[in-house]
Amino acid sequence: MSSRPIAILGGTGPAGTGLALRWARAGESIIIGSRDTQRAQEGAQKINEKAGNHARVSGMENSAACAAADLLVLTVPFEGQAALLKQLKPAIQPGSILIDATVALATGVGGRASRTLGVWQGSAAQQAAELVPKGVSVAAAFHNLSADLLNGDPALDCDVIVCGDDADANQVARALAAKIPGVRAIDGGKLENARILEQITALLIGLNIRHKGHGGIRITGLPPEAYK
Amino acid sequence: MSSRPIAILGGTGPAGTGLALRWARAGESIIIGSRDTQRAQEGAQKINEKAGNHARVSGMENSAACAAADLLVLTVPFEGQAALLKQLKPAIQPGSILIDATVALATGVGGRASRTLGVWQGSAAQQAAELVPKGVSVAAAFHNLSADLLNGDPALDCDVIVCGDDADANQVARALAAKIPGVRAIDGGKLENARILEQITALLIGLNIRHKGHGGIRITGLPPEAYK
Repeated sequence: MSSRPIAILGGTGPAGTGLALRWARAGESIIIGSRDTQRAQEGAQKINEKAGNHARVSGMENSAACAAADLLVLTVPFEGQAALLKQLKPAIQPGSILIDATVALATGVGGRASRTLGVWQGSAAQQAAELVPKGVSVAAAFHNLSADLLNGDPALDCDVIVCGDDADANQVARALAAKIPGVRAIDGGKLENARILEQITALLIGLNIRHKGHGGIRITGLPPEAYK
Repeated sequence: MSSRPIAILGGTGPAGTGLALRWARAGESIIIGSRDTQRAQEGAQKINEKAGNHARVSGMENSAACAAADLLVLTVPFEGQAALLKQLKPAIQPGSILIDATVALATGVGGRASRTLGVWQGSAAQQAAELVPKGVSVAAAFHNLSADLLNGDPALDCDVIVCGDDADANQVARALAAKIPGVRAIDGGKLENARILEQITALLIGLNIRHKGHGGIRITGLPPEAYK
């Protein structure tokens, strides 16, 4: 997979930056996408410096990133998700895989980050699936990794549950998750289950506020094959 | 706390039986509540035999159990929760603590156990809070422990997140959780957060079906004080 560049759309935020850092260190070629080309390039440069030798992170405007990659990771605040996907519809290549990490936090309408908004389609990921061009497969993952921890050096102590209706997209997302040190990837079934993954983020944010931590989740009690 | 009996309402099901077994082994005095007195007594007898020496488990009709205890744990299927609480309203003592473990699984209306129903109040626990007599405090906990594992012997590998608006009820529920070997109790804040705990059960059931396991969750990344 390491020859296939990963475009992280909305990649200058903390979650996108952290994922880019970890994947760059794992040898992946990364494109940071942003509304603003210069901002994308500056972000990419910082990640290259942090990731160390041989890191291959570049920056592009979001549409250009979609033209340059068919493996897309979406890390934008919920309030920008639909507009961005509508804007990118002509740019996303047929056959692309989009991995959505969006969480409909109530902060999008001035509420608390420990609460979520109801999304008509069931989840932000299902909204994404409705908005991408035909032939683009959507998986949901990476909601529950602390951006602070991703942007640091130590291995994480978290599992990533991946949901998606397309077996290939689901598998690609799990392979990406497993490239983050300390992370185990678990197939969480259909895309509709993303609604629960997204809720868990709000729970973890609430725990972080209450207990001053960087909460993550581990799933226990599954056979070893489930974590591969 | 060990002098305060715990009444497990709807306690003859797998979750209630498993909690009773673990708490009986921890030295707690348990009352199994059921619609049917004889069924409650038979269930209690089985738990006593399994729990070993000194186990103190008795069985009563649910109303009698409420009259005999002011620490109540509710482990019924969602489709029976509201009716039972309405029926028990005259029996529940003022000042009681009710710990709700109900999950609104779609099985209640013939659907899948990996999906939930929307509850008008936000969660089954919030519905419980609306239905108990005034002066009764509700906490939500124990949704995400595998009944199969609770009914076994080994220590569990799971955390119990407790939600509740009453600090005392929340603390009592956490103390009960911590009496289950292997379980760490975490304060999850307000009762409204129970909606996420309940969703997690559906996610775990889906994972169990998909991967043939007995899934549980651990929360990582919080400071040690959070787990006390």
